[in-house]
Amino acid sequence: MSATEPAATGHAFDADTQVTPVGDGRWHGEVSPRWSIGQYPNGGYILAIGLAAVRATLPHPDPVAVSAHFLSPTEHGLVDVEVEPVRAGRAHSTAAARLLQGGTERARLLATYGDLAAARGPTVVIASPPLLPPPEECTGQEATGPLPSGLDPAIRRRFDLRLDPATSGWFAGAPSGRGELRGWLRFADGREPDTAALPLLVDALPPAVFDLATGGWVPTIEISVYVRGRPAPGWLACRTATRFLMDGYLEEDAELWDSRGRMVAQSRQLARLNRGP
Amino acid sequence: MSATEPAATGHAFDADTQVTPVGDGRWHGEVSPRWSIGQYPNGGYILAIGLAAVRATLPHPDPVAVSAHFLSPTEHGLVDVEVEPVRAGRAHSTAAARLLQGGTERARLLATYGDLAAARGPTVVIASPPLLPPPEECTGQEATGPLPSGLDPAIRRRFDLRLDPATSGWFAGAPSGRGELRGWLRFADGREPDTAALPLLVDALPPAVFDLATGGWVPTIEISVYVRGRPAPGWLACRTATRFLMDGYLEEDAELWDSRGRMVAQSRQLARLNRGP
Repeated sequence: MSATEPAATGHAFDADTQVTPVGDGRWHGEVSPRWSIGQYPNGGYILAIGLAAVRATLPHPDPVAVSAHFLSPTEHGLVDVEVEPVRAGRAHSTAAARLLQGGTERARLLATYGDLAAARGPTVVIASPPLLPPPEECTGQEATGPLPSGLDPAIRRRFDLRLDPATSGWFAGAPSGRGELRGWLRFADGREPDTAALPLLVDALPPAVFDLATGGWVPTIEISVYVRGRPAPGWLACRTATRFLMDGYLEEDAELWDSRGRMVAQSRQLARLNRGP
Repeated sequence: MSATEPAATGHAFDADTQVTPVGDGRWHGEVSPRWSIGQYPNGGYILAIGLAAVRATLPHPDPVAVSAHFLSPTEHGLVDVEVEPVRAGRAHSTAAARLLQGGTERARLLATYGDLAAARGPTVVIASPPLLPPPEECTGQEATGPLPSGLDPAIRRRFDLRLDPATSGWFAGAPSGRGELRGWLRFADGREPDTAALPLLVDALPPAVFDLATGGWVPTIEISVYVRGRPAPGWLACRTATRFLMDGYLEEDAELWDSRGRMVAQSRQLARLNRGP
């Protein structure tokens, strides 16, 4: 499917990240309220809209390394995406992209694409997927209800997220102090993961900092996402962690493992812990 | 000191990252061979040249989040830096920058600056500095000699690097298989660390992948650097790790802790392990 065709799948991710070319490397997208935390769209969702335009511009299929700096809060509704192809090589191609609303820049991206199916080289993995109870023994959203802040983010209904009960105590006001969340993740509407969706999925868990400090609004300053493999269908096992909350700044590292036990995406972001939006 | 004045310190870092404005947001720099691995300049050094021009352009002093995508191998000699201010807010300002040689783009950066001295907010740190023997009991460069590949990179003479002997076995052909390097780091010429130098210092150790797989050339595709604090004078304690070498792609995470035991910079990069340059 080219990015210019209407999404025929009926899946929310494809419908809500569709972009339409309007000439000269410019695209129109629509920021849906379905991926928001209160009035603020999730950063990974904004990234996925920008990458839909980048993907349609570059010759390689997989977003191996993506960096985004968030500049001002995105609103629901029309978004302009401007894509500048930077370099196309044999193995990788790179583009820059700007997301604007009413002429105000919301986010700036750099994205390097490659072809993970064509990658050749040594493999040594010295990490294991998170040890999780089976999904049916984890804490689903129906069990957790609204966030401790009282908010019930629309984005939660897009995912089937099952947190390891060992890392969901903060929902009940009892953070573990370890700064780590683990769980199972998939789209609620049955869409299978692919490399286009991983930059959103890797940012889909609640902030791990909620396991360290009382919740608030956690806007992302910068996120980098590395897509390391094409995911198999089924559940993704996730682990996110924050180790350094310093003067309100925090990093969050995330990993997604597919149903074959292969790590397929990792991200690191710098964010701020603010008291309310 | 403004970036337009000659570096009066006599320190190699300041002399070799100096940039001169040539109008319209354009700057000239000079890529010195003193920071190279063979014929290839270190990525953190290239980043530091670009950031010297960004720092002179933006109102905030500290590079809190920097992302760089490397596009083609940089050569020694003249480099053009083009800086585009993207947004200036109260707490943060952001710029994009391009580094070009002979019209060919070498690297594209996004950098968000802030003022770490003005940061206010909660602090919870759940990690500790690496446990290291004192510097005099670590493995210095005089003990390790050239790299296992036979190369003796010029950049090694810019730093006083003392590796924990538990992580320097790969020099003698005996990698530990843990994919982790730890050690002490400072500039060889006595220059103290600051937030301008941290984006280079955090990329100064040899690749941690050498502790997993036979050495080669490890070009960076993308690096993101978060500067988390203004470092105290003295040694930096470092830890770098690679956990996923997959089909030749690898991530490397690094942390620098200052002499007060405070984590001051962290980076993550995606690179390729290639057989020879």
